[in-house]
Amino acid sequence: MTILLALYRRPDGGDEALAEFERRYAAEHLPLVAGTPGLRSTEVRRVTEALGGETDLVLVTTMRFDDRASLDAGLASDAMRAAGRNLREIAPGLATLLVLEDADDLSA
Amino acid sequence: MTILLALYRRPDGGDEALAEFERRYAAEHLPLVAGTPGLRSTEVRRVTEALGGETDLVLVTTMRFDDRASLDAGLASDAMRAAGRNLREIAPGLATLLVLEDADDLSA
Repeated sequence: MTILLALYRRPDGGDEALAEFERRYAAEHLPLVAGTPGLRSTEVRRVTEALGGETDLVLVTTMRFDDRASLDAGLASDAMRAAGRNLREIAPGLATLLVLEDADDLSA
Repeated sequence: MTILLALYRRPDGGDEALAEFERRYAAEHLPLVAGTPGLRSTEVRRVTEALGGETDLVLVTTMRFDDRASLDAGLASDAMRAAGRNLREIAPGLATLLVLEDADDLSA
Protein backbone atom coordinates (compact mmCIF):
# COMPACT_ATOMS: atom_id res chain seq x y z
CA MET A 1 0.00 0.00 0.00
CA THR A 2 1.29 3.44 -0.97
CA ILE A 3 -0.42 6.52 0.43
CA LEU A 4 -0.55 10.03 -0.91
CA LEU A 5 -1.10 12.19 2.16
CA ALA A 6 -2.19 15.79 1.60
CA LEU A 7 -1.70 18.25 4.46
CA TYR A 8 -3.56 21.55 4.04
CA ARG A 9 -2.63 24.71 5.91
CA ARG A 10 -5.16 27.33 6.96
CA PRO A 11 -5.66 29.99 4.26
CA ASP A 12 -5.26 33.66 5.08
CA GLY A 13 -8.55 35.44 5.58
CA GLY A 14 -10.00 33.86 8.68
CA ASP A 15 -12.96 31.52 9.01
CA GLU A 16 -14.59 32.87 5.86
CA ALA A 17 -11.55 31.97 3.74
CA LEU A 18 -11.39 28.53 5.34
CA ALA A 19 -15.08 27.90 4.65
CA GLU A 20 -14.63 28.95 1.02
CA PHE A 21 -11.60 26.68 0.63
CA GLU A 22 -13.54 23.75 2.10
CA ARG A 23 -16.50 24.48 -0.15
CA ARG A 24 -14.38 24.46 -3.31
CA TYR A 25 -12.33 21.50 -2.09
CA ALA A 26 -15.51 19.42 -1.80
CA ALA A 27 -17.28 20.80 -4.88
CA GLU A 28 -14.34 21.01 -7.30
CA HIS A 29 -11.24 19.25 -6.11
CA LEU A 30 -12.48 15.95 -4.69
CA PRO A 31 -14.61 15.08 -7.74
CA LEU A 32 -11.49 15.51 -9.91
CA VAL A 33 -9.41 13.37 -7.55
CA ALA A 34 -12.12 10.70 -7.56
CA GLY A 35 -11.49 10.08 -11.26
CA THR A 36 -7.87 9.05 -10.68
CA PRO A 37 -7.13 5.55 -12.00
CA GLY A 38 -5.78 3.21 -9.31
CA LEU A 39 -7.06 5.30 -6.41
CA ARG A 40 -8.44 2.80 -3.87
CA SER A 41 -9.89 5.19 -1.30
CA THR A 42 -9.94 8.83 -0.22
CA GLU A 43 -10.51 9.94 3.37
CA VAL A 44 -10.82 13.60 4.29
CA ARG A 45 -10.37 14.59 7.92
CA ARG A 46 -10.34 17.86 9.81
CA VAL A 47 -7.59 18.76 12.25
CA THR A 48 -9.45 19.56 15.45
CA GLU A 49 -6.49 20.02 17.77
CA ALA A 50 -2.71 19.85 18.05
CA LEU A 51 -1.80 18.22 21.38
CA GLY A 52 0.67 20.24 23.38
CA GLY A 53 1.10 22.89 20.74
CA GLU A 54 -0.36 24.75 17.83
CA THR A 55 -0.66 23.91 14.16
CA ASP A 56 -1.56 25.73 10.97
CA LEU A 57 -2.92 22.50 9.47
CA VAL A 58 -6.69 22.30 8.93
CA LEU A 59 -7.30 19.27 6.69
CA VAL A 60 -5.55 15.94 6.15
CA THR A 61 -6.55 13.75 3.20
CA THR A 62 -5.41 10.15 2.78
CA MET A 63 -5.42 8.70 -0.75
CA ARG A 64 -4.54 5.01 -1.03
CA PHE A 65 -2.97 3.21 -3.98
CA ASP A 66 -1.82 -0.41 -4.33
CA ASP A 67 1.83 0.53 -4.70
CA ARG A 68 4.17 3.26 -5.87
CA ALA A 69 3.75 2.32 -9.54
CA SER A 70 -0.03 2.74 -9.22
CA LEU A 71 0.46 6.11 -7.53
CA ASP A 72 2.80 7.26 -10.27
CA ALA A 73 0.31 6.19 -12.95
CA GLY A 74 -2.41 8.02 -11.05
CA LEU A 75 -0.33 11.18 -10.76
CA ALA A 76 0.27 11.12 -14.51
CA SER A 77 -3.45 10.79 -15.30
CA ASP A 78 -5.62 13.56 -16.74
CA ALA A 79 -7.76 13.44 -13.59
CA MET A 80 -4.88 14.06 -11.21
CA ARG A 81 -3.35 16.71 -13.44
CA ALA A 82 -6.67 18.56 -13.45
CA ALA A 83 -6.88 18.12 -9.68
CA GLY A 84 -3.41 19.62 -9.34
CA ARG A 85 -4.35 22.64 -11.43
CA ASN A 86 -7.49 23.09 -9.35
CA LEU A 87 -5.49 22.86 -6.15
CA ARG A 88 -3.14 25.62 -7.25
CA GLU A 89 -6.23 27.76 -7.77
CA ILE A 90 -8.17 27.05 -4.59
CA ALA A 91 -5.26 26.58 -2.15
CA PRO A 92 -2.12 28.15 -3.64
CA GLY A 93 0.92 27.21 -1.59
CA LEU A 94 -1.19 25.65 1.16
CA ALA A 95 -0.76 21.95 0.45
CA THR A 96 2.07 19.55 1.28
CA LEU A 97 1.84 16.24 -0.59
CA LEU A 98 3.69 13.35 1.03
CA VAL A 99 4.25 9.86 -0.32
CA LEU A 100 4.08 7.30 2.51
CA GLU A 101 5.16 3.68 2.46
CA ASP A 102 4.41 1.08 5.13
CA ALA A 103 7.28 0.72 7.59
CA ASP A 104 6.75 -2.93 8.48
CA ASP A 105 10.11 -3.06 10.24
CA LEU A 106 8.86 -0.38 12.62
CA SER A 107 6.00 -2.01 14.45
CA ALA A 108 5.32 -2.92 18.02
CA MET B 1 -13.45 7.30 14.37
CA THR B 2 -10.94 9.69 15.91
CA ILE B 3 -7.33 9.56 14.81
CA LEU B 4 -4.21 10.65 16.62
CA LEU B 5 -1.74 11.44 13.84
CA ALA B 6 1.91 11.80 14.80
CA LEU B 7 4.21 13.61 12.37
CA TYR B 8 7.93 13.19 13.08
CA ARG B 9 10.58 15.54 11.76
CA ARG B 10 14.10 14.42 10.87
CA PRO B 11 16.45 14.64 13.86
CA ASP B 12 19.70 16.57 13.61
CA GLY B 13 22.73 14.36 13.06
CA GLY B 14 22.17 12.85 9.64
CA ASP B 15 21.27 9.29 8.72
CA GLU B 16 22.88 7.90 11.87
CA ALA B 17 20.63 9.99 14.11
CA LEU B 18 17.58 9.01 12.06
CA ALA B 19 18.45 5.32 12.32
CA GLU B 20 18.90 5.63 16.09
CA PHE B 21 15.56 7.43 16.43
CA GLU B 22 13.83 4.72 14.39
CA ARG B 23 15.50 1.99 16.43
CA ARG B 24 14.33 3.47 19.74
CA TYR B 25 10.92 4.33 18.31
CA ALA B 26 10.36 0.67 17.44
CA ALA B 27 12.05 -0.82 20.50
CA GLU B 28 10.82 1.58 23.20
CA HIS B 29 8.05 3.87 22.06
CA LEU B 30 5.71 1.63 20.07
CA PRO B 31 5.52 -1.07 22.77
CA LEU B 32 4.42 1.61 25.24
CA VAL B 33 1.84 2.99 22.81
CA ALA B 34 0.53 -0.53 22.19
CA GLY B 35 -0.64 -0.71 25.81
CA THR B 36 -2.99 2.24 25.42
CA PRO B 37 -6.59 1.34 26.30
CA GLY B 38 -9.02 2.01 23.47
CA LEU B 39 -6.34 2.09 20.78
CA ARG B 40 -7.81 0.21 17.78
CA SER B 41 -4.81 0.19 15.46
CA THR B 42 -1.38 1.74 14.90
CA GLU B 43 0.17 2.17 11.46
CA VAL B 44 3.71 3.47 11.04
CA ARG B 45 4.77 4.78 7.64
CA ARG B 46 7.90 6.37 6.24
CA VAL B 47 7.80 9.57 4.22
CA THR B 48 9.59 8.64 1.01
CA GLU B 49 8.99 11.84 -0.94
CA ALA B 50 7.32 15.23 -0.90
CA LEU B 51 5.77 15.88 -4.31
CA GLY B 52 6.76 19.22 -5.79
CA GLY B 53 8.75 20.28 -2.77
CA GLU B 54 10.76 19.29 0.24
CA THR B 55 9.79 18.16 3.71
CA ASP B 56 11.52 17.61 7.01
CA LEU B 57 9.01 14.88 7.92
CA VAL B 58 10.34 11.32 8.07
CA LEU B 59 7.64 9.25 9.80
CA VAL B 60 3.85 9.44 10.03
CA THR B 61 2.01 7.26 12.54
CA THR B 62 -1.76 6.80 12.55
CA MET B 63 -3.40 5.73 15.82
CA ARG B 64 -7.15 5.01 15.66
CA PHE B 65 -9.70 5.32 18.45
CA ASP B 66 -13.46 4.88 18.38
CA ASP B 67 -14.15 8.51 19.23
CA ARG B 68 -12.76 11.55 20.98
CA ALA B 69 -13.76 10.28 24.42
CA SER B 70 -11.79 7.07 23.82
CA LEU B 71 -8.78 9.08 22.67
CA ASP B 72 -8.96 11.27 25.76
CA ALA B 73 -9.15 8.22 28.01
CA GLY B 74 -6.20 6.72 26.16
CA LEU B 75 -4.16 9.90 26.50
CA ALA B 76 -4.80 9.90 30.25
CA SER B 77 -3.65 6.28 30.64
CA ASP B 78 -0.38 5.20 32.26
CA ALA B 79 0.68 3.65 28.95
CA MET B 80 0.28 6.85 26.95
CA ARG B 81 1.86 8.97 29.66
CA ALA B 82 4.89 6.69 29.62
CA ALA B 83 4.92 6.85 25.82
CA GLY B 84 4.88 10.65 26.04
CA ARG B 85 7.82 10.69 28.44
CA ASN B 86 9.71 8.33 26.15
CA LEU B 87 8.97 10.50 23.13
CA ARG B 88 10.41 13.57 24.84
CA GLU B 89 13.58 11.53 25.36
CA ILE B 90 14.01 9.95 21.94
CA ALA B 91 12.62 12.75 19.75
CA PRO B 92 12.63 16.01 21.72
CA GLY B 93 10.71 18.69 19.83
CA LEU B 94 10.42 16.55 16.71
CA ALA B 95 6.82 15.38 16.94
CA THR B 96 3.55 17.09 16.03
CA LEU B 97 0.48 15.32 17.41
CA LEU B 98 -2.75 16.08 15.57
CA VAL B 99 -6.28 15.02 16.45
CA LEU B 100 -8.27 14.24 13.29
CA GLU B 101 -12.01 13.79 12.91
CA ASP B 102 -13.82 12.46 9.84
CA ALA B 103 -15.10 15.27 7.63
CA ASP B 104 -18.12 13.48 6.21
CA ASP B 105 -19.44 16.72 4.77
CA LEU B 106 -16.28 16.98 2.67
CA SER B 107 -16.43 13.98 0.38
CA ALA B 108 -16.66 13.51 -3.33
